[in-house]
Amino acid sequence: MPQKQSLATLEEFKAFCADEADFLEVYDFQAERIDYGEATVRLPYERKHVRPGETVSGPAMMAIGDYTVWVAIVGAYGVMAKMAVTTSLNINFLRAAGLNDLVCEGRVFKRGKRLAVGEGTVYADGYEEPVAHVTATYSIPPVKT
Amino acid sequence: MPQKQSLATLEEFKAFCADEADFLEVYDFQAERIDYGEATVRLPYERKHVRPGETVSGPAMMAIGDYTVWVAIVGAYGVMAKMAVTTSLNINFLRAAGLNDLVCEGRVFKRGKRLAVGEGTVYADGYEEPVAHVTATYSIPPVKT
Amino acid sequence: MPQKQSLATLEEFKAFCADEADFLEVYDFQAERIDYGEATVRLPYERKHVRPGETVSGPAMMAIGDYTVWVAIVGAYGVMAKMAVTTSLNINFLRAAGLNDLVCEGRVFKRGKRLAVGEGTVYADGYEEPVAHVTATYSIPPVKT
Amino acid sequence: MPQKQSLATLEEFKAFCADEADFLEVYDFQAERIDYGEATVRLPYERKHVRPGETVSGPAMMAIGDYTVWVAIVGAYGVMAKMAVTTSLNINFLRAAGLNDLVCEGRVFKRGKRLAVGEGTVYADGYEEPVAHVTATYSIPPVKT
Repeated sequence: MPQKQSLATLEEFKAFCADEADFLEVYDFQAERIDYGEATVRLPYERKHVRPGETVSGPAMMAIGDYTVWVAIVGAYGVMAKMAVTTSLNINFLRAAGLNDLVCEGRVFKRGKRLAVGEGTVYADGYEEPVAHVTATYSIPPVKT
Repeated sequence: MPQKQSLATLEEFKAFCADEADFLEVYDFQAERIDYGEATVRLPYERKHVRPGETVSGPAMMAIGDYTVWVAIVGAYGVMAKMAVTTSLNINFLRAAGLNDLVCEGRVFKRGKRLAVGEGTVYADGYEEPVAHVTATYSIPPVKT
Repeated sequence: MPQKQSLATLEEFKAFCADEADFLEVYDFQAERIDYGEATVRLPYERKHVRPGETVSGPAMMAIGDYTVWVAIVGAYGVMAKMAVTTSLNINFLRAAGLNDLVCEGRVFKRGKRLAVGEGTVYADGYEEPVAHVTATYSIPPVKT
Repeated sequence: MPQKQSLATLEEFKAFCADEADFLEVYDFQAERIDYGEATVRLPYERKHVRPGETVSGPAMMAIGDYTVWVAIVGAYGVMAKMAVTTSLNINFLRAAGLNDLVCEGRVFKRGKRLAVGEGTVYADGYEEPVAHVTATYSIPPVKT
């Protein structure tokens, strides 16, 4: 994406998220950065995310990937895009995450009128090689004029 | 898959799951059926799975799809496959699920020596049209001989 | 999909395809059946589709999967959907196809206003187990009124 | 991937490709660069790749994505990996490619013993924004010892 100013600040983002917190009870996502078409989100390690093999589960990686690309989309479109819905998602699991926070770097590939497409690279906090890579597509709600 | 007897019974499956319950605290999956390369799993509706728009979230659909195909794999390989790990997953979100239980029907396409591939069709309980469709690949642990 | 009459006949489909044959020079697709949200397409075996290992290539399987779901979409929407474009596609390769015709069975999961989603199961002609499974999403052109 | 020397030179790569040219009759891929886990491949524009709308077809984009990641894998594993087979592939189509050469930049995310995973970003030659993004997984043939 061309480098532009984010269309939503981190404060604006956090304000509208606070009201609608149901599924954030499961995933305590911390948005750390929101830029134009980019975002960084952290999922703090909690025992409830662990799968057999003593490693954070695949569903937690899918969830943070989906969420992070959505935050990047809010940065690219502004708060009006908060009702964007995921239409498809693909994930490749690359390495075990161990018992660590997950940190995801999201980026928008395409900022279309009807569809947005982006990727998220998921890391176990403190490690260099990614644990998972997500691409996802979102349907952008029509703008009322 | 050819019709054969399941290599794991529902009782065997539930027995080994009971010990390793961490991420099942988030997702209270109920395996309802396990056959040779097939399975049915239910995720009871809970408020914590709801996303804005009053509908069960995408991560919950991804999680049940992943889990159900894995249960079908245990049915196709036996309990030795319980350490199978997902290597990639693709999901298409088709309709809103509303505030309902999710029910997923899983099926194995390929029962390979190293890889298994399957699909899961996710329904909102009581509705005919699926809410999501998942395909996923799993790495099968080598058999020690 | 509910069982309804196809919105395009095989004859109508073949008529509009005949004009726009460039990439059909590479892939000599034969539409054998078109129903409401369903289609069957054949790719006759040709040496030019073979990859090392004496088997029809992955790109040929991706191409027939994409094409077949698109034909099924034309059956579900009518000829107006011929300009539908693929927005994402996922394929799992299951078995080697050998030196055979490919036959793909396509089916629409979702017939939305803006997006259609479907699957294609690819067979090596004469064999029971599929060689590949495709899911794909298409953007439906707006209807001019 | 960490920066190391390619395990196959462009000359070695071209030498083993020359013998097995069947499907290269359809796709005249030009490997322009091969590094350790990275590669660049060009598909020269030909009329036979065009789909309705006067743009290079989706199957051509899928084919170059698959091929380029495979070349990057040969760079990461050496010529022994030439029999690696694609097990799954996901593509997002981002923009129309027009009537241009395609150029794909491939990169390996994971160089595993049994599986390799990578991405390919496809460009219409001369344009900055990508036309498609591919991720794909390959089964690595066991090393005979």
